[in-house]
Amino acid sequence: MENYYHNVQYYETDKMGVTHHSNYIRWMEEARIDFFKKLGFDYLDFENVGVFSPVVGLNNIRYKKPSTVGDCIEIIVNVKSYNRLILEMHYIMKKENTIIFEGESSHCFIKENGKIIKLGDENFKSLHEKLLELTNKDE
Amino acid sequence: MENYYHNVQYYETDKMGVTHHSNYIRWMEEARIDFFKKLGFDYLDFENVGVFSPVVGLNNIRYKKPSTVGDCIEIIVNVKSYNRLILEMHYIMKKENTIIFEGESSHCFIKENGKIIKLGDENFKSLHEKLLELTNKDE
Amino acid sequence: MENYYHNVQYYETDKMGVTHHSNYIRWMEEARIDFFKKLGFDYLDFENVGVFSPVVGLNNIRYKKPSTVGDCIEIIVNVKSYNRLILEMHYIMKKENTIIFEGESSHCFIKENGKIIKLGDENFKSLHEKLLELTNKDE
Amino acid sequence: MENYYHNVQYYETDKMGVTHHSNYIRWMEEARIDFFKKLGFDYLDFENVGVFSPVVGLNNIRYKKPSTVGDCIEIIVNVKSYNRLILEMHYIMKKENTIIFEGESSHCFIKENGKIIKLGDENFKSLHEKLLELTNKDE
Repeated sequence: MENYYHNVQYYETDKMGVTHHSNYIRWMEEARIDFFKKLGFDYLDFENVGVFSPVVGLNNIRYKKPSTVGDCIEIIVNVKSYNRLILEMHYIMKKENTIIFEGESSHCFIKENGKIIKLGDENFKSLHEKLLELTNKDE
Repeated sequence: MENYYHNVQYYETDKMGVTHHSNYIRWMEEARIDFFKKLGFDYLDFENVGVFSPVVGLNNIRYKKPSTVGDCIEIIVNVKSYNRLILEMHYIMKKENTIIFEGESSHCFIKENGKIIKLGDENFKSLHEKLLELTNKDE
Repeated sequence: MENYYHNVQYYETDKMGVTHHSNYIRWMEEARIDFFKKLGFDYLDFENVGVFSPVVGLNNIRYKKPSTVGDCIEIIVNVKSYNRLILEMHYIMKKENTIIFEGESSHCFIKENGKIIKLGDENFKSLHEKLLELTNKDE
Repeated sequence: MENYYHNVQYYETDKMGVTHHSNYIRWMEEARIDFFKKLGFDYLDFENVGVFSPVVGLNNIRYKKPSTVGDCIEIIVNVKSYNRLILEMHYIMKKENTIIFEGESSHCFIKENGKIIKLGDENFKSLHEKLLELTNKDE
């Protein structure tokens, strides 16, 4: 699958002259949405039927090298783990083939009323099977 | 009525070392919501009953002096005009008593379905009367 | 010249479910930088030699239709006027060929110390001549 | 020491109706700068003499409960560890006395040229001693 690319914008820099660190968290999100869209799962379709997948955690976020406006960032997204309730994603960001960022996000699945959803044969079967497949592939 | 104050944050600066210009548009919003709250009209109460007041225009935005992290910005909000359909607000921002920014925003009132609402005796009477009072005061 | 495209991101939406209005101001900037880059003038090259072109004003900003995450926004940039001291840019944003936004930004040229620069035969001649050419074209 | 408070803004929400998760990372920064300022160390004074303390990592970020516009968030900041090269900070965020967020950030100290600084008797002695004192206090 083709990786995602983000062009760093002027408004994403701060007075240190480099990308403000909060923006990498936003790029994780845009790359994740793109990753699932390329697999055939449009996150907005899920929200339209009242299913949300909020970020419940961020782990091992490492800012290794700075970036700035004009840089094109390649973002490599992978499923790290999945157990029907919690999905963990892993991200590597590169600038000219050098890793500048690594990190992980954790997600659950909830209904509009906040009730937790367990994916499986009854609920979102095709996404469930794809996530199982993606985690097995990594083993 | 007491003016609103915003403390400029590090993440609001850009690589020029000053506040990115898009943030003043955000501060207009936070000062406007505060202005109406102090008058007894909590914007969130309106949204909770399905009434929204989106920004339809920005006019005469003037960036006169820069600001940066650590600065405390005083924001003076006024109603510029109101005609039941369109509300125009005016903003002055000061840093240590010097005007650094001036601008205006225009707003309409809509229902969740996008249908335009005309304020008046039947619709949001108390807000309608307050807005009339505030525009008369300015004459 | 090819227009610029921006894909609306989830983090650009607000609780109204649509793009927060401050983001269009940011997209004006990214489309403007792209516009000059395609003409051969990389804004970052100017900043690297200590020349900045801050936004001094925004005019006639009109939010005509909402957009949201997943939308692809086409941004058409033009030079509206130029007189060696002030550059005015005009922007039209379209979603599926419908105009959703229009607006203008004004810019001056300054040195790192804040001193105003007048473009011309002595200063940034090639940019000066290109800007003259672009404003004549519009007449 | 008095804790820091952040009032959630409309522009910080997303289409899920709650604060976008990237903003908590920004609030960590504003609360951290406030924490050191209250201790007598203004981060901007350090930057003015060419010393920067970038975020090199984020760990154990936990989004426990959502927040939204109108909420007032109390942010409790502590020094988690310090070894002259790396400073780790810990954050708890509360809404009406309920913990809604917890997380950690790691920082190094660098000069404008990117060279790493080791704090100590020769370099920034008073900050060094304060950080030692703060980590001992936690033991």
